[in-house]
Amino acid sequence: MTTTAHAYAAPSADAPFAPFSFERRDPLPDDVAIDILFCGVCHSDLHTARGEWGSVNYPCVPGHEIVGRVSAVGSNVTKFAVGDLAGVGCMVDSCGHCPSCTDGEEQYCETTGFVGTYDAPDTVSGGYTFGGYSDHIVVKQDFVLKVGHDEADLAAVAPLLCAGITTYSPLHHWKVGPGQKVGVVGLGGLGHMGVKIAKAMGADVYVFSTSPTKRDDAKRLGATDLIVSKDDAAMGDHANSFDFILNTVAAAHDLDPFLRLLKRDGTMTLVGVPETPHPSPSVGDLVFKRRSIAGSLIGGIQETQEMLDFCVQHGLTADIEMIDIQSIDGAYERMVKSDVKYRFVIDMQSLKAA
Amino acid sequence: MTTTAHAYAAPSADAPFAPFSFERRDPLPDDVAIDILFCGVCHSDLHTARGEWGSVNYPCVPGHEIVGRVSAVGSNVTKFAVGDLAGVGCMVDSCGHCPSCTDGEEQYCETTGFVGTYDAPDTVSGGYTFGGYSDHIVVKQDFVLKVGHDEADLAAVAPLLCAGITTYSPLHHWKVGPGQKVGVVGLGGLGHMGVKIAKAMGADVYVFSTSPTKRDDAKRLGATDLIVSKDDAAMGDHANSFDFILNTVAAAHDLDPFLRLLKRDGTMTLVGVPETPHPSPSVGDLVFKRRSIAGSLIGGIQETQEMLDFCVQHGLTADIEMIDIQSIDGAYERMVKSDVKYRFVIDMQSLKAA
Repeated sequence: MTTTAHAYAAPSADAPFAPFSFERRDPLPDDVAIDILFCGVCHSDLHTARGEWGSVNYPCVPGHEIVGRVSAVGSNVTKFAVGDLAGVGCMVDSCGHCPSCTDGEEQYCETTGFVGTYDAPDTVSGGYTFGGYSDHIVVKQDFVLKVGHDEADLAAVAPLLCAGITTYSPLHHWKVGPGQKVGVVGLGGLGHMGVKIAKAMGADVYVFSTSPTKRDDAKRLGATDLIVSKDDAAMGDHANSFDFILNTVAAAHDLDPFLRLLKRDGTMTLVGVPETPHPSPSVGDLVFKRRSIAGSLIGGIQETQEMLDFCVQHGLTADIEMIDIQSIDGAYERMVKSDVKYRFVIDMQSLKAA
Repeated sequence: MTTTAHAYAAPSADAPFAPFSFERRDPLPDDVAIDILFCGVCHSDLHTARGEWGSVNYPCVPGHEIVGRVSAVGSNVTKFAVGDLAGVGCMVDSCGHCPSCTDGEEQYCETTGFVGTYDAPDTVSGGYTFGGYSDHIVVKQDFVLKVGHDEADLAAVAPLLCAGITTYSPLHHWKVGPGQKVGVVGLGGLGHMGVKIAKAMGADVYVFSTSPTKRDDAKRLGATDLIVSKDDAAMGDHANSFDFILNTVAAAHDLDPFLRLLKRDGTMTLVGVPETPHPSPSVGDLVFKRRSIAGSLIGGIQETQEMLDFCVQHGLTADIEMIDIQSIDGAYERMVKSDVKYRFVIDMQSLKAA
C-alpha cells in the first residue's frame, strides 16, 4: 500500500529541478507519516544533486532538514500521535545492533552504515530513499524527532536537523561549557549554528573568517568577536588560548594557524570534508602542546533530540531565508557563492502551487 | 664554586666526539649532584650533535637518559640523600608558574619553555646546559627522579628517562588499559618501550612494522602479533578495531592506513616530528569515525616518576646494547641504520679510561 508523494527532483547532474511524483509506503506498524511543512537546504543536497560526491540515483529528491506534522502512525508507535510536530534529519535507519548503534551513535553505524534520508538504499521499501523536497515522508519512529518549538518558529527549526546537530554534537562531545574559549571557523549555515549553540553552552565564542565584514553579524549571533584569519597579528594575539575550535570550512585550507591558537590539550574538530586535501598539518604544533585534530559527523538520534530540546530551552533557531520550491536552482547558485544568511528553507506549501 | 666535569662532546656538527672538560656548579641549596653511571643514547642526541635541528652551541655534550648515584645534596634538599640512585631525563628546569608547570606538565611550559638537559640556556648557572655524556651532573631536586630498580638493572633503566616516558605519557593520558586493543607503529627505541608498557597496562598490543622479520621480537616484547604495514590485506583484517595507536615513526609516512584501523572515537598519537611533512591525512577517515590525530611530548616530572615506579612494579626495563663512550660515533652510525636493539647505553665507567 502506497501513497503518491509530490516532490521536486534533480532529473540528472546538470538539469534543473523539476516536479516529480513517486510512491511512499503507507505507515508500517513502526512508522510515522509526516506532512512536510518546511525543509532546509544543505550543501550536501547540492553536492548530491549535482553528482559531485559520486554516483547518484536520479531522479534525486534531496532534503534532510525536515519538519512537519504527523499525519498517521503505525500500530506500534507510542512516541508520536497524529497532529504532533516532528522532525527528520540525515538518517532514516541503521543496523540497530552494532556497537555504534547500540551506543546511540547511529551516524557511525558499523555494518551497513546509516541509511541516508535521500539517495540511499531503502532498507524497508526497497529502491532508494527520497528526501524532504516533497510533501510527505514515512520514517521509522526511532528516527523521528520531537519538535518542541513554537509552531511560528518551525521554518527556522528545520536547519537544526542537520546544521544544528552537526555543530551541537562535537561541541557536546568535547564538553564545551562555561569558562571555555571556543572558536568557530567559517560563518555559514553550520558556523552560525555553532556560534549560537556554543554561546548557549556558556562558552566565550570567537568566529574566524577571512572577511571582517561579518563582524557585526558574528557578534549579533553571540560571538565575543570575529578574528580575521588572514590577519597574522590578530591571530597571534590569541595564540595558545582556545580550548576548542569547531572548523566548519570544507574548502581546503591551512589548518596550522588555527592549531596554534589551541591551548595545551586543545582539540580542533573538522566537520567538513574537503574535495582536495588540506595542506598537511604541522606535527610539531600537535606534539609540543599535545593538541588534537579530530573529525565529527552529524550526531546520533538521541543526541539530536537533546539538541532540539536544548534549542527550545535556549530559544535557538537558525537564521533563514525562506524560498519556494520553484526557486531551488537559484538558491543553489547563491549557496555556491556563500550568498545566504544563513540557511535557505523551503516552504513546502509552495509545492501545491506547482 | 664549581667542579670540573669530564665528558665527551661534539666539537662541531661534522667532527667526531672528543673528550671535553667544563665546570659544573657545586650544589646550591635546592640542587642534587649525581655521579653518572649510565646514559642512554637517544636519536635527539644525534640530531642535536649534528646540527640537524638548527643552531647548536658547540662543544655539545648530549645525553638525557641519565642514571647515577647522588653524591651531594643542597641544604634544602629533602627528597634525596647521598648514596641514593637517581635519574635525570629531558628537562632540568621550567618556569614553575605557568598553567602547564602548575599542572605538572613542565614539558609544555608556556613561558620560557622547559630547560633541556643539554644545549639549552642554563637558567641557574648561565651559559648553556651540558648533558649526560659526562661524569656528573647537578640538577634542581624537583627535576631529579627516584630510581627504585635493582642496581643490577641500572643501565637498562636509563632509556626509561626519555624513551620510557615518551611512550608511557600518551598511553597513560589516553587511558590505555585492560580490554583495549593498542597499536605501536615502529619497533625502535621508543616503540619497544611502548609495547612493553602498553602490555603491562593490560592492553592487547600489536606492532606495525614494514619488516616481518621483527615478528618474533615483537612477540617476545609482549605484542600479540606484528602486522606488516605494507600488507594491505593484513591491515584490512584489523580495520576499525584499535582503541589507540601510538605512532613512534618520525620519518614522513602515510598516516591513513593506520587511521583506518582505529575504532570510532579512536586516537592515533604521534610522538615523532618528521623532517618533511607526512602526506596530508584523510579528513574523511577522521569525520566518519570521529577519530583523532594527536601529538605528545615526553611527559611531566611527576608522570616520569609514576612511569619509573610503574616499571619497577612490572619489572620493566629497556632492551639495551652497552657501549663505551669511545664508541659513540660508531653507535650513531648504527642508529642511522636503525641497527640497534633497542637502545645504546653508555657505561660511564668508560670515561675514566679516556
